Amino acid sequence: MDFVSALKDVAIKDLQELGERVEQSISEDKFIYDACAPLLSGGKRLRPVLFLLCSRSKGICPNEKTMPLATALELIHTASLVHDDILDNAKKRRGVETINSRYGAQISVLVGDYLFAKAFQLVAENDYGNEVAAVLSKLVKNLCTGEIMQDRSLFTVPTMSEYYERINLKTAIFLSSCCRLGGIVAGLNQKEIDGLAFYGGSLGLAFQIVDDLLDFFGDEKITGKILGGDLKSGVVTLPVIRALQVSEKSKILREIITRKKLTDSDISAAIEIVKNTDAMEYCKMRADGHIDSARINLPFLIKTSVALALEQIADFVVDRSW
Amino acid sequence: MDFVSALKDVAIKDLQELGERVEQSISEDKFIYDACAPLLSGGKRLRPVLFLLCSRSKGICPNEKTMPLATALELIHTASLVHDDILDNAKKRRGVETINSRYGAQISVLVGDYLFAKAFQLVAENDYGNEVAAVLSKLVKNLCTGEIMQDRSLFTVPTMSEYYERINLKTAIFLSSCCRLGGIVAGLNQKEIDGLAFYGGSLGLAFQIVDDLLDFFGDEKITGKILGGDLKSGVVTLPVIRALQVSEKSKILREIITRKKLTDSDISAAIEIVKNTDAMEYCKMRADGHIDSARINLPFLIKTSVALALEQIADFVVDRSW
Repeated sequence: MDFVSALKDVAIKDLQELGERVEQSISEDKFIYDACAPLLSGGKRLRPVLFLLCSRSKGICPNEKTMPLATALELIHTASLVHDDILDNAKKRRGVETINSRYGAQISVLVGDYLFAKAFQLVAENDYGNEVAAVLSKLVKNLCTGEIMQDRSLFTVPTMSEYYERINLKTAIFLSSCCRLGGIVAGLNQKEIDGLAFYGGSLGLAFQIVDDLLDFFGDEKITGKILGGDLKSGVVTLPVIRALQVSEKSKILREIITRKKLTDSDISAAIEIVKNTDAMEYCKMRADGHIDSARINLPFLIKTSVALALEQIADFVVDRSW
Repeated sequence: MDFVSALKDVAIKDLQELGERVEQSISEDKFIYDACAPLLSGGKRLRPVLFLLCSRSKGICPNEKTMPLATALELIHTASLVHDDILDNAKKRRGVETINSRYGAQISVLVGDYLFAKAFQLVAENDYGNEVAAVLSKLVKNLCTGEIMQDRSLFTVPTMSEYYERINLKTAIFLSSCCRLGGIVAGLNQKEIDGLAFYGGSLGLAFQIVDDLLDFFGDEKITGKILGGDLKSGVVTLPVIRALQVSEKSKILREIITRKKLTDSDISAAIEIVKNTDAMEYCKMRADGHIDSARINLPFLIKTSVALALEQIADFVVDRSW
C-alpha cells in the first residue's frame, strides 16, 4: 500500500499547501529557516494528514479552518524529533543531516523550543480556542513524560506494560490527539470524537510497534535511519522483549543490550539473534491486532470517503517500509 | 531596597499562593516534581509579580483570573533556565544543583519541554483566550531567537546594537509581556496596555544589564551563581564591551575572552581588567537611564498603589545584589 494513494482523500494539492504553510511558518527568522527547512520538507506528514482527514468527517472543511492547526501539528512533531536527536546523537533524520549534528546540542534545544512556540502561536492567532490548545499542550506533556520514562530506563528491559505505557505516551496519544482535533474542528459530537480518538490511539500503538520493528528489519535507504539505532542508544523495544522470551540465546542478548556502550559488532550480533526468532511475526501480529481495533472504532463514518482513507492509512501503517 | 518590601502591593499571602500553585502545577508526575520542586521554590518571581501588579491597575483582580497565568509565566521562565543550564553546564541555579548537573542534558531538555507545555495547558484550561496565548507563544519564540543569537556569537565581541538586540529578545520582551498580560487581564485600554508594556521592556533592559554586571561584581553567596560564568561560556556582555573601549589592557582582554577555553586564571584576569575600568559605573548609568525611561511610561497609573510598587521594583532592579 502506497502511502500517497492511501491519502487520495487528502488531495495532492492539500499536501502541497500544507508543505507551503509549514515552510512559511518558519520563514520569519533566517537562521531558523535555514536550519529547519530541509528537515521540515521531509517526513510522512502522518499527523497533519490524520487531522485533515478527520476534519472532513462531515464533508469539506475550509482550509482556513484546518491548515494552521495541521501546520502546528507538524511543527510539534518536528520539534520533538529535533530534541530527540540530541540524545540519540543521530547523524541523519528524514534522510538529511540532523540539526544536532550540524549545529550542536544547544542550538537543537532552542530550535525545538522555537518550533513548539510557533505551533502554539499558530493555534492562538487562528482562534482555535481553549479546547484545542488544551489538547495540544497535553499531548506535548505526555510526549515528554514518555520520553523521560524511556530515557530513565535505557539499557534495561521493560516489562510489557512498561513498554506499552511508553509507546502510548510517546506516540499513541499524539496520533489520537490529531484525530480528536480533527473531530473537534469538524464539529462532531463527543461520542464520534472519542471514536476517532480511539482509532488514532490504536493506530499509534501499531505505528510505534512497526517503527520499532523497522529498527531491526528496515532498509536504511528507505527509512532514512541507521539500523540498530534504538539498540545503540539503549532503547529496548518489542522485538527484543519478544526475542528475550523465546530465543535460545536470550542470555547473550540480554547481556549485550544492557552493556552501556555497544560496539557495531554488538549491534550486529543482537540484530542477528532477534532475526533468528519469531520477533518479526510476533510484532506484526500485535500491530495487526491494534489496527483491527482501530478499524472497529470507525462505524459512524463507514462508507464515507474519509473512513476509507483512514482504513487505507491503517493498512499502510502495518505494511510500511518507512 | 528590599525586593519583598518593594512588593508590598502583592501581599505576602499572594506570593505564598503563587508558590503553592507553582508547586501544585508540577505535582501530576512524580519525577517532574522531584526534579523541579527545588528549582521552582527559589527565584525572585519577578515575572509573575510584574504580571500580578499590572493586573491590579484598576484595583483588585480576582486570584482565579490571575494566578493560573502568573504560574504559567513562572513555569516558562523556569523552563528557559533549565534549557539554558544545558549550554552553560552550570552546576548551580537559584542556589540548588541544576537539573543538567543532576540528570544530564536529555532529561533537562524534556523537563524544560514539559514545563513549557504545562504553562500553555494552564492558559488553555483557564480560558485566557487567544490574545493571551499569542503573547505567551511570541515571547517564547523571541526568547529562543535571542538565545540562538547569543549561542551563535559566543567568544566574539558584539556591537552595542547587537548586544541590545540580544537582551531585548532574551529578557526585555519577556518582562514587557508580563506587564502587557497584566494590562490585558485588568481590562485596560490599548494605550494603557502599551504604556505598561513599555515600562516592562525598559525595566527588562535595565534588569539584564544589572544581571550582566553581577557576573563580574556580584557576591556568589547572594546571587547563587558562580562569578565569571558568562565569560567562561563565551557570552560577552556590556561590562566587557565597555572595558574594551576604555581599558589600557583592552588588547589582552580581547585576546582572553575570544579564547574558546578559558581557564580559571583567564577568568580572574579578565574580571580584574574589567574591574579596573569604569565599566560598573557605565553599566549602572545605562541601567539608570532605562529605569528612568520605564518610570515615565507610567503616568496613567500615577498615585495609585500599583504605580508605587512598580516604581519600587524599578529601584530594586538597579540596586539589587541578586
